Amino acid sequence: MNGAPVSLLAVGSVAFDDLETPSGRREKILGGSASYFSLSASHFRSVDIVAVVGEDFGPEHFQVFAGRPIGLDGLAQVPGKSFQWKGIYGQDLNEAKTLETHLNVFAGFRPELPIASREASFLFLGNIDPVLQLEVVKQMTRRPRWIALDTMNFWIEGSKEALLCVLKEIDILLVNETEARSLSGERNLVKAYQKIQALGPRILVVKRGEHGVSLFTPEGYFMAPAYPLEEVHDPTGAGDTFAGGFLGYLATLESLDLEGMKQATILGTVMASFTVEAFGTAQLETLTSARIQERSRHFSSMIRVSAF
Amino acid sequence: MNGAPVSLLAVGSVAFDDLETPSGRREKILGGSASYFSLSASHFRSVDIVAVVGEDFGPEHFQVFAGRPIGLDGLAQVPGKSFQWKGIYGQDLNEAKTLETHLNVFAGFRPELPIASREASFLFLGNIDPVLQLEVVKQMTRRPRWIALDTMNFWIEGSKEALLCVLKEIDILLVNETEARSLSGERNLVKAYQKIQALGPRILVVKRGEHGVSLFTPEGYFMAPAYPLEEVHDPTGAGDTFAGGFLGYLATLESLDLEGMKQATILGTVMASFTVEAFGTAQLETLTSARIQERSRHFSSMIRVSAF
Repeated sequence: MNGAPVSLLAVGSVAFDDLETPSGRREKILGGSASYFSLSASHFRSVDIVAVVGEDFGPEHFQVFAGRPIGLDGLAQVPGKSFQWKGIYGQDLNEAKTLETHLNVFAGFRPELPIASREASFLFLGNIDPVLQLEVVKQMTRRPRWIALDTMNFWIEGSKEALLCVLKEIDILLVNETEARSLSGERNLVKAYQKIQALGPRILVVKRGEHGVSLFTPEGYFMAPAYPLEEVHDPTGAGDTFAGGFLGYLATLESLDLEGMKQATILGTVMASFTVEAFGTAQLETLTSARIQERSRHFSSMIRVSAF
Repeated sequence: MNGAPVSLLAVGSVAFDDLETPSGRREKILGGSASYFSLSASHFRSVDIVAVVGEDFGPEHFQVFAGRPIGLDGLAQVPGKSFQWKGIYGQDLNEAKTLETHLNVFAGFRPELPIASREASFLFLGNIDPVLQLEVVKQMTRRPRWIALDTMNFWIEGSKEALLCVLKEIDILLVNETEARSLSGERNLVKAYQKIQALGPRILVVKRGEHGVSLFTPEGYFMAPAYPLEEVHDPTGAGDTFAGGFLGYLATLESLDLEGMKQATILGTVMASFTVEAFGTAQLETLTSARIQERSRHFSSMIRVSAF
């Protein structure tokens, strides 16, 4: 990507995860929102990462991104250890219990965009401190065609003011059901969307895990189920993988129309289905376009209904 | 329906409900699985009810079914009071807390099919004691083209043996997620379907409330979201209304193919969306074909995706 115009820029975390699920356990595997996001998005559009890792991030880890259109100029390596997360999932796989969080080098993370990245056409602000998300927006030398943002209850409850500031700047908000409700104060998602629209984002994407995704746009709504799988081994990264497929595909389109966003939702859902079938990024790393196409075709024909 | 050949026969409960939801409260309103089911199904196919009510079931209650193609020859009125249920819903509306259940005349209910009903082409066994469901099956003088059954955890846990007997006789099982998991011993719904198929039913319909419906058939799977509503006033009867729309429409088709079942799922979902917008059967009672068609068109175009 050196010197090439940056299209999709993603700011987030690159981390090491220790995971335990009913299917097994893994230690120090590649994780973090920017990792899942970029590996997924890169199947549709070139993507540049802005994140930070420590000295323990070796050539074998950089290697995961090599050979894919993922720019690493913004991936700073600094003294110290990388962000580390340790979590465990119970039988229902819906939510991880966090056992340990070591921010390490991530604690001092101040995203610094490479010059070329400041003109990116599309911007994804992964789930980090909204103060930093706002700093990223301010570093852009021109307004991206769209800005998407992910956040979590920790920031909604603890940094509401900063979050409300950055929400004013964005087009697409991606959150889960609990977060949409907590941010809007509305349990009903249609009403939650109306409240959230008034805060800035004109598009709301509600990630509902095994129940799929709900998309709210001024043009209309769309809901897609999750892709039905027989085996889910590790749900970690499903949301970021969805965001990568969804936004990676949107970054190939001229405008944010409902038809394009429906297709993007299908692709994001399909990408996430690959992620959860294996631990960490294992299946994302070896995924081919042919498999993505095959599953997207199968999924879209599965959910297709005739006109009434 | 007197003397006409019976097409769809529904066995279940007709009851009075006392309800409280965040939107308000109602006392002694018409409820019960057979009420919601028949009012919904009758928009697609004539339906005969087999159920029991007490002396407190007055002309104004019979009146609700009049003017619709709902046969009441099998609705026995006996000395005593009708089945009465009292429940309350919290903010999340997902599950009612039962405050009181008075079986009353329902305690002695032994379904007795009118002669004409014993040749019904299609049979829906609402959520009652599986021993009684099996008795109904045995009263049929010819095997219906399909038999559908609804049940609940109370029977799955308490009357497993009888339930397993009647499951061998049926084609379509309608349950919620918890029930599908409890019956199969599998959390994953794809695996749950495989186990349930081995018990008898070749088709599994999983009602997931606000998350929609999942349909598992030998021909393939289908998942539909719930219809997005701004106001949900009373979720009571949503499942039975869905079953009524789903099976009422299926009873107009020649065979149980996946395409037809997809359409049936859309119609069932749309019917349920009308029910939950008002208390009890209020909206079902005044529903027109035009409104059903309009919402079905809107819903199917909402969830439609282009081919990949």
